[in-house]
Amino acid sequence: MDIEKVNSMDFGEFVDVFGNVVERCPLIAAAVWSQRPFSDLEDLEKHFFAFIDGLPQAGQEGVLRCHPDLAGCELQRGALSAESLREQSAAGLTSLGAAERLRLAELNAQYRARFGFPFVLAARLRDPEAVLRELARRLRCLPAQELRTALGEVKKIGRLRLADLLGGHPLGP
Amino acid sequence: MDIEKVNSMDFGEFVDVFGNVVERCPLIAAAVWSQRPFSDLEDLEKHFFAFIDGLPQAGQEGVLRCHPDLAGCELQRGALSAESLREQSAAGLTSLGAAERLRLAELNAQYRARFGFPFVLAARLRDPEAVLRELARRLRCLPAQELRTALGEVKKIGRLRLADLLGGHPLGP
Repeated sequence: MDIEKVNSMDFGEFVDVFGNVVERCPLIAAAVWSQRPFSDLEDLEKHFFAFIDGLPQAGQEGVLRCHPDLAGCELQRGALSAESLREQSAAGLTSLGAAERLRLAELNAQYRARFGFPFVLAARLRDPEAVLRELARRLRCLPAQELRTALGEVKKIGRLRLADLLGGHPLGP
Repeated sequence: MDIEKVNSMDFGEFVDVFGNVVERCPLIAAAVWSQRPFSDLEDLEKHFFAFIDGLPQAGQEGVLRCHPDLAGCELQRGALSAESLREQSAAGLTSLGAAERLRLAELNAQYRARFGFPFVLAARLRDPEAVLRELARRLRCLPAQELRTALGEVKKIGRLRLADLLGGHPLGP
């Protein structure tokens, strides 16, 4: 899909295509449509990121809270978004052994209790061991720092999803 | 459900229950959770409304763009949210005759083209004739005024949905 095609979309089409660039936040894509025309993928991405950066802290926490746990109950009960399922699968999180799944569930619960939002990571760039290591590391961070880190991961995920849609060259493997 | 129950919810439960108070904007409920504890239904409602009021104009337009057309294609293909289906049904919009449906589709299309967001109305407070009359009237309004009117309808819808969930006394019939 090229940028002319994107610029020709009405808001219904645009939200259908880009509504999950930020997980379960179609509101953000719907707002970004106001900023068209876009010059290229980077320009489009810039408007998604600017919207997130412009939210008050509660809104930024809200964006994070719309994300599922990695290898969590949404995966178990088949309720993940298509994008999230693909990413968790690419990271090997859909085929964990029982012990790893339990360890991840424990750390996810500790993380949610400590920060008030779920652990968000651009998972497809990782493998299960690296996910567990990163989760254990981030659990020890300070809340203000961790909010910034987590929003950075939301942006990495968004960049990869946009590149998937527009056929660009995403980060990483 | 009483307010103590609401205040005891973790963010996952809260978003499950209140995620569609604003149509297809779980981000807003997820952000409002940061403001707990809530003293009562009005206090909870106040935080939903304050979030909407605090958005930049593109974000407010984005909220509107997450709403379906009344008696539109989402209804035809069974893709409405449960809340929206109930409300459109209460207004008699799920059993329109072909001529009324066509008239509504024409006016909806004109409205979307004029304002860049769909026609939003707290439909359960109306009947099909009143919906058509109001749509024709609002089509003639100025864009800045219409944005305010439409956001007022989003709030009416949110108030009714919150009252449904908390067992309060909603507006109207």
